[in-house]
Amino acid sequence: MAKGAETRDAILRRAVSLASVVGLEGLTIGGLANEMGLSKSGLIAHFGTKETLQLSILQAAAQMFASRVVVPARREPAGEARVRALFDRWLEWPASQDLPGGCPFVTATIEFDDRPGVLRFFVNKVQKEWVDVVQQAAREAKDSGEFVPELDVAQFAFNMFAIFQAFHSYASLMNDRTAEGRARASFEGLVRRAKGEYQPVTPEAERAENPSTAGARRTDDSEAAAAS
Amino acid sequence: MAKGAETRDAILRRAVSLASVVGLEGLTIGGLANEMGLSKSGLIAHFGTKETLQLSILQAAAQMFASRVVVPARREPAGEARVRALFDRWLEWPASQDLPGGCPFVTATIEFDDRPGVLRFFVNKVQKEWVDVVQQAAREAKDSGEFVPELDVAQFAFNMFAIFQAFHSYASLMNDRTAEGRARASFEGLVRRAKGEYQPVTPEAERAENPSTAGARRTDDSEAAAAS
Repeated sequence: MAKGAETRDAILRRAVSLASVVGLEGLTIGGLANEMGLSKSGLIAHFGTKETLQLSILQAAAQMFASRVVVPARREPAGEARVRALFDRWLEWPASQDLPGGCPFVTATIEFDDRPGVLRFFVNKVQKEWVDVVQQAAREAKDSGEFVPELDVAQFAFNMFAIFQAFHSYASLMNDRTAEGRARASFEGLVRRAKGEYQPVTPEAERAENPSTAGARRTDDSEAAAAS
Repeated sequence: MAKGAETRDAILRRAVSLASVVGLEGLTIGGLANEMGLSKSGLIAHFGTKETLQLSILQAAAQMFASRVVVPARREPAGEARVRALFDRWLEWPASQDLPGGCPFVTATIEFDDRPGVLRFFVNKVQKEWVDVVQQAAREAKDSGEFVPELDVAQFAFNMFAIFQAFHSYASLMNDRTAEGRARASFEGLVRRAKGEYQPVTPEAERAENPSTAGARRTDDSEAAAAS
């Protein structure tokens, strides 16, 4: 790797780390230059404006996420094993040593949700791609016959997203030591329902899950329930 | 109400609105003074430092939340009806006309989770009080016999928190129109499980839910599942 690219990579690794704590808006070119023992003008030479620096940081974080979560999970067989690997590695991700402030995308989501622009566009794109990865893994688990055929994979991904977000809030804001156990318990229930291991036992539940075709097997992640 | 208190209230209402968009850190005394047609020194006379202004904004937001979500839900009968009212009003809350940027606590959580101090302390306190309100409502639903006696109310509150957070992300960042439908479908499943309307149908699920006392009824929100 050329010296310039090496320096750039080192800056970005440090910047992702800092941004996990102070956010992308909290990061200043002066502060980062100071941390790296560089001049402000040296840093600007590498990244240009603050916005291009912020975008580079998000891209670097997205690459870290892909190599730590998505790529290893894809080594697992398609199906339930891959879905579980995605969840397990997702839970580990905000505890990475180089992310002292947790998942940088959780922060970025909040920073940019109300501010149209290239950064919001990128964060949104990364989140949607990630939701697609989860949906695809759930779809593969349907194809393998492990998850029930009527599972709504978009609802499944929504629920997995929900569990991660509550885990992050409970762990990072509330310092709640039960966060991981609660997240794993919820995920276990989600997977078992996706496998059809729970069935309605009351007429009310049967009707709620399956308003049109009485008798067919449904879970609360099915399309019928999602539309209700 | 005295003139000073009226002005203070008007400033806080406007500040909560602004903070929902730009965050509490994004808010400047100069910017807010400008919005209100006041001088910076006039605003400082009302609130002192930026930190005391930020704390006053959080307190005002907490009062809004209490009067729009908690108080009306407490008018519903204790039990399932109150749990449902809390959830319904919670979903409506970030769409309030005077909160153009959604729930100010979602933003504040992220802004202060890594910054010890009075603001982090207050946000944490508000979140924990809210979790307690949900747990208490679930406990009342157990007492009324609507929810199963073995329900783990802390796990129930975690799951309700999770659904709200995913709803907020899907709606505000991803502009996903299915967000509300998905959130309601997930909540419906959560309530129905709390009511014992779904039971394990496979020996694996039976064992997972109930590792010690085979045969007793459990849901994935039960303590046994939470500990797994």
